[in-house]
Amino acid sequence: MNLDALFNAQSIAIVGASSREKTVGNDVVKNLSTQGYQGKIIPINPKIDELYGHKVYHDIADVDQSIDVVVIAIPAKFVPDVIKVAATKGAKAAVVISAGFKEIGNVELEEQLKDVCRKNDIALIGPNCLGVINAQNKMNASFASLMPEVGNIAFMSQSGALCTAVLDYADKMAIGFSKFVSIGNKADVDEVDMIRYLHTDPQTKVVALYVEQLSNAREIIDTLIELNKGDNPKPVVILKSGRTEAGAGAIASHTGSLSGGDSAYEALFAQAGIIRANTIEDLFNFAQIFCVNPQTQINKIVVLTNAGGPGVLTTDEVVKHGFEMAELSEETVRVMKEALPEAASTHNPVDVLGDARADRYKMALEAIIKDPAAEGIIVLLTPQSMTEIEETAQAIIDVTKDSQKPIVVSFMGQKSVHTGVEMLQAADIMTTTFPEPAAASLAALSNFSKWSKRPAGEALHFDDVDYDKVTQIFSKAKAEGRTSFPEALAMEIMEAYNFPLLKSVQAYSSHEAAQKCFELGGDEGKFAMKIVSNDILHKSDVGGVMLNVTTKDAAQKYDQMLMTVSEKKPEAKLDGVLLMEMAPEGGTEIILGVSKAPGLGTMIMFGLGGIYVEVLKDVDFAYAPLTRVDAMRMINGLKSSKIFEGVRGQQAVDKEKLVECIGRLSQLVTDFPEIIELDINPLLALPDKSIVLDARVVIE
Amino acid sequence: MNLDALFNAQSIAIVGASSREKTVGNDVVKNLSTQGYQGKIIPINPKIDELYGHKVYHDIADVDQSIDVVVIAIPAKFVPDVIKVAATKGAKAAVVISAGFKEIGNVELEEQLKDVCRKNDIALIGPNCLGVINAQNKMNASFASLMPEVGNIAFMSQSGALCTAVLDYADKMAIGFSKFVSIGNKADVDEVDMIRYLHTDPQTKVVALYVEQLSNAREIIDTLIELNKGDNPKPVVILKSGRTEAGAGAIASHTGSLSGGDSAYEALFAQAGIIRANTIEDLFNFAQIFCVNPQTQINKIVVLTNAGGPGVLTTDEVVKHGFEMAELSEETVRVMKEALPEAASTHNPVDVLGDARADRYKMALEAIIKDPAAEGIIVLLTPQSMTEIEETAQAIIDVTKDSQKPIVVSFMGQKSVHTGVEMLQAADIMTTTFPEPAAASLAALSNFSKWSKRPAGEALHFDDVDYDKVTQIFSKAKAEGRTSFPEALAMEIMEAYNFPLLKSVQAYSSHEAAQKCFELGGDEGKFAMKIVSNDILHKSDVGGVMLNVTTKDAAQKYDQMLMTVSEKKPEAKLDGVLLMEMAPEGGTEIILGVSKAPGLGTMIMFGLGGIYVEVLKDVDFAYAPLTRVDAMRMINGLKSSKIFEGVRGQQAVDKEKLVECIGRLSQLVTDFPEIIELDINPLLALPDKSIVLDARVVIE
Repeated sequence: MNLDALFNAQSIAIVGASSREKTVGNDVVKNLSTQGYQGKIIPINPKIDELYGHKVYHDIADVDQSIDVVVIAIPAKFVPDVIKVAATKGAKAAVVISAGFKEIGNVELEEQLKDVCRKNDIALIGPNCLGVINAQNKMNASFASLMPEVGNIAFMSQSGALCTAVLDYADKMAIGFSKFVSIGNKADVDEVDMIRYLHTDPQTKVVALYVEQLSNAREIIDTLIELNKGDNPKPVVILKSGRTEAGAGAIASHTGSLSGGDSAYEALFAQAGIIRANTIEDLFNFAQIFCVNPQTQINKIVVLTNAGGPGVLTTDEVVKHGFEMAELSEETVRVMKEALPEAASTHNPVDVLGDARADRYKMALEAIIKDPAAEGIIVLLTPQSMTEIEETAQAIIDVTKDSQKPIVVSFMGQKSVHTGVEMLQAADIMTTTFPEPAAASLAALSNFSKWSKRPAGEALHFDDVDYDKVTQIFSKAKAEGRTSFPEALAMEIMEAYNFPLLKSVQAYSSHEAAQKCFELGGDEGKFAMKIVSNDILHKSDVGGVMLNVTTKDAAQKYDQMLMTVSEKKPEAKLDGVLLMEMAPEGGTEIILGVSKAPGLGTMIMFGLGGIYVEVLKDVDFAYAPLTRVDAMRMINGLKSSKIFEGVRGQQAVDKEKLVECIGRLSQLVTDFPEIIELDINPLLALPDKSIVLDARVVIE
Repeated sequence: MNLDALFNAQSIAIVGASSREKTVGNDVVKNLSTQGYQGKIIPINPKIDELYGHKVYHDIADVDQSIDVVVIAIPAKFVPDVIKVAATKGAKAAVVISAGFKEIGNVELEEQLKDVCRKNDIALIGPNCLGVINAQNKMNASFASLMPEVGNIAFMSQSGALCTAVLDYADKMAIGFSKFVSIGNKADVDEVDMIRYLHTDPQTKVVALYVEQLSNAREIIDTLIELNKGDNPKPVVILKSGRTEAGAGAIASHTGSLSGGDSAYEALFAQAGIIRANTIEDLFNFAQIFCVNPQTQINKIVVLTNAGGPGVLTTDEVVKHGFEMAELSEETVRVMKEALPEAASTHNPVDVLGDARADRYKMALEAIIKDPAAEGIIVLLTPQSMTEIEETAQAIIDVTKDSQKPIVVSFMGQKSVHTGVEMLQAADIMTTTFPEPAAASLAALSNFSKWSKRPAGEALHFDDVDYDKVTQIFSKAKAEGRTSFPEALAMEIMEAYNFPLLKSVQAYSSHEAAQKCFELGGDEGKFAMKIVSNDILHKSDVGGVMLNVTTKDAAQKYDQMLMTVSEKKPEAKLDGVLLMEMAPEGGTEIILGVSKAPGLGTMIMFGLGGIYVEVLKDVDFAYAPLTRVDAMRMINGLKSSKIFEGVRGQQAVDKEKLVECIGRLSQLVTDFPEIIELDINPLLALPDKSIVLDARVVIE
């Protein structure tokens, strides 16, 4: 997609270059000219001749050299034509800073722009963006004035203004970047294209994004699974705004795009292994830990501190993020006990006490790092008068130099600890001002490893489904102009895809009724008996429904029902009765359905049924088609998932049977994208099976 | 309690003063001597004669002048005797830095210390603490080396080491303090004493605490309600560690104290109007907003920004914290529309666009601040090249100068925005580095106002209870050595306190059975019939339980039951039958009970019953006795509280009837503190009543 040509441009033309300071057209030329970029800079402006030492061309058509990248900051309507000309000069990429496209309703102009770029094989960044920075070759093709330090985070943002704030913040916080991209309206190049490119970029270890809206969940999931299944998994960390309805409304009004609700994004992130950050600070904490620590799955953490209180706060955070506090080996405890004062705590959290100098930290950390129980380590320090800030930082650097164990260090405070913090940062050790974000960052690291190393698996697939039957049902309905399939019709579709249903059978005589009951349920069988007739709409009104019919009295009840119905509805033609097993007592009511996320795709919904659906809204989502892992994540992800394990004497539910139902639904909606609504409600989850009791389907 | 004498000491003796640098005994004398303290400094050390220009006494007994405060940093066992001598010199307060008391198991020595202080009317801070700082008179009687800026936050910490970290942090973050106290083991002076004192301190606007464990919830609640009901409410913000079991374990091991679980603290904070912070940063954000903004209840917030993305992130946070995004008036929108470029958003979040200079901010903020819909305001700024940082800061200062509306400003970034941030801080405008904490801080401000202005109300009390009856029941049981009251016995207690129960009555003949049934339930009554006999343990085994007995067949069933039981158990003496209403169908099962929080007190527990108790753990707690407000908070605080409003055709529950049950239980456990366990399970909540179906009670 020419993104390599973009980031490694040998020559950049700036259309809309300006000599007036503090304008976009001036900033871009200044940033390219003054921050170390070595390529050719070709400003274009009809009225001036020279800018920051570069010859200014009056028209892009006049340029007598080759242009790799064109940066455009002129009114929107002129942009497509400029790109056409740039293409003739060899341009492979365009960065369109100009606003005035889709975001203010000019959808057509944006389409035209896309078209021109596509026809001319030009990768387009923007429009309506801040520009692009490559920290490695010092190419600041943006109007943000700061060149970030070189580092391993590639940052992309759908908000240009956030870029400048982040650069301003990063400058003080020792956060380094590989690439820095304001992605704007992403008319052409979007996050997925960029992630694909960055995956090949050796300088980039992690991709951090600020996102307001994404498209095509399936493509994102498949791309990230594909890219990350090898030896070179590269995490993507996302700060997604619009969690709330009000936030989503604000996005729609400033981007001109509608998008799915937050649960649609949660599902996407879970399936694609994307790490979600909830704040700007978390975004960079999570990104940074991947720059300095190896990707590892960890479960147990040791906290080393010179202060009890912060040790407890950190313990809380460790547990909150799903880790355990490691139990140190007897040997580790013995070694520490020998060297530490009696009041010290040699159990995790290890407290070397407020008067600890560097030697105590060094000894304790050496012991801990050798202990296999310590999979991850958090070191805390509070500055007491005897605390040796720099010596302790050096001790930590020395001890951890050859270790592969993830470590986060929090030297708490500012004024007196900052020299130590800078030493740690220079040695590529992750630091946080306060201890709270340390555990969250380790969780991000470990969770991504777990995701990338999990068996991804194939989409759930069943051979015993009757695709043709459903095709027929839908064709017939379409021909008749019907789109909605209530109860009975929906159950036919369920049957075709072999969902577990209550067994039912038709009988045409009292003798047959008794025989069929015996076949279905033996001597002790219990059934619902329903009259079958095309002429009867409300069966129960005419005595056409009986519950708890037993095998023994089935024959008698058959005769009784036919007589009653004939009396009440003499004109109706009767086709015998339907005998259906009674639904088992007990069990847990589940709701299983389909939900369409605008712009993102079709999701399977799985949740707690009954009256608690509304009250607790305990539902999970995943994009179809689903793997077994996806299905299990939905089942175990419910807040009330413990109910499946068996509570209060209730037996545990067979989760494999739930997986099967989820899988069949996933296959059905993948086979028939015309399904826009489908609810199985309830799906009854039992110890030995799960049964569809009712369903409804709507197609386009 | 002599705390005024402590903070305004005219003379301070330091026992354990040392000439060796970087020791506690040296630090305290140095800090007092070099940071501006104007009182007399009296170091005590047997071996030296002079320290930091002060005469050193070899023994406290030798001191020939009056001592207001004694600071002690010598081995624990010598401390009580030193205090005795200090008392003879006039000491009103002692700050015991020495460790080696309760925290390492020396409970007796700590008791002895307490005793000495009490007998000599000495207020004791510590032991095992860092010391005390009064920023106003520059008295740093601690071994933390930094003197904080003077401000309006009183900070207290149960972790001494956290104090030094906070001072180090505050020094860079322009956080000012009134008093700064390391409270240590709080053998004598505890948080409540200190809060009571600080309430009278004009310099203190807010009290911020780091806490590991508290005692006596009722005293804390009553004190804070009492202190804050006047015109001078002073918020308390707490960072409480030990949220998790592992964290609580770590606390127990380093303080030597057990404490209640986190839900016990949540209940305490809710009832006492304490604002809970979850991180150190939040603790100071929440404290700071009270220093610079008036206490006001707000519901609607306006966000003003020059960047769409941060505007959306902030919108999310605003909604997440329970606020609404204010809808601006037509007039406000009109005024802004006239002055802003077309692409700007004049609806909330108001976006003055990336190229906004100070004038746009000024105009928009003027319009917004006049609009009654804007109850609180968050202003965001990202630094673009044309952004006027200082001019915009000045504009914000000018426009908000005379406004009483709470405002938080986030100039996002560091390097280029810091001059503006400093101007804002100097003008007492609350700032945050990123926008996320702004809404949370405004929520802290508003929630405290709501709490302090709420009608507090009296404890729920009912006159129709039979106190004597329960006294008798308990006396009898105690005499018999019984402590546990299962089902039937517990229901007697419930009846005495007039809880709504199913009606029941005894009948001694078939005729009487029919008559009583009619009296209880008319012709359509349905009952459970149970044999009454002291000789029968398992009634149902001998045919002594019948369900769904109707008024019509009651006489016949009576005869039938007496015959069956007589046949099966001929030796038993029968006392007729108990007729009890059948429990109504439907309704919501509630669990209502008593829970003891170690060290904190007796809580009422209210939660969702049935199988979801275990799965969802949806329960609330409150300390007895409860007011109506407390009871409603519990009911409406459940995650599933929506169920009481009526869902899926189920009728709404009468919450007043729930309040009544909660109130009766609160009264019962307050009247009888010997009750250590009590569960009403289930309490059946119905549209017109709530009924106790079963209960169990355990006394000490």
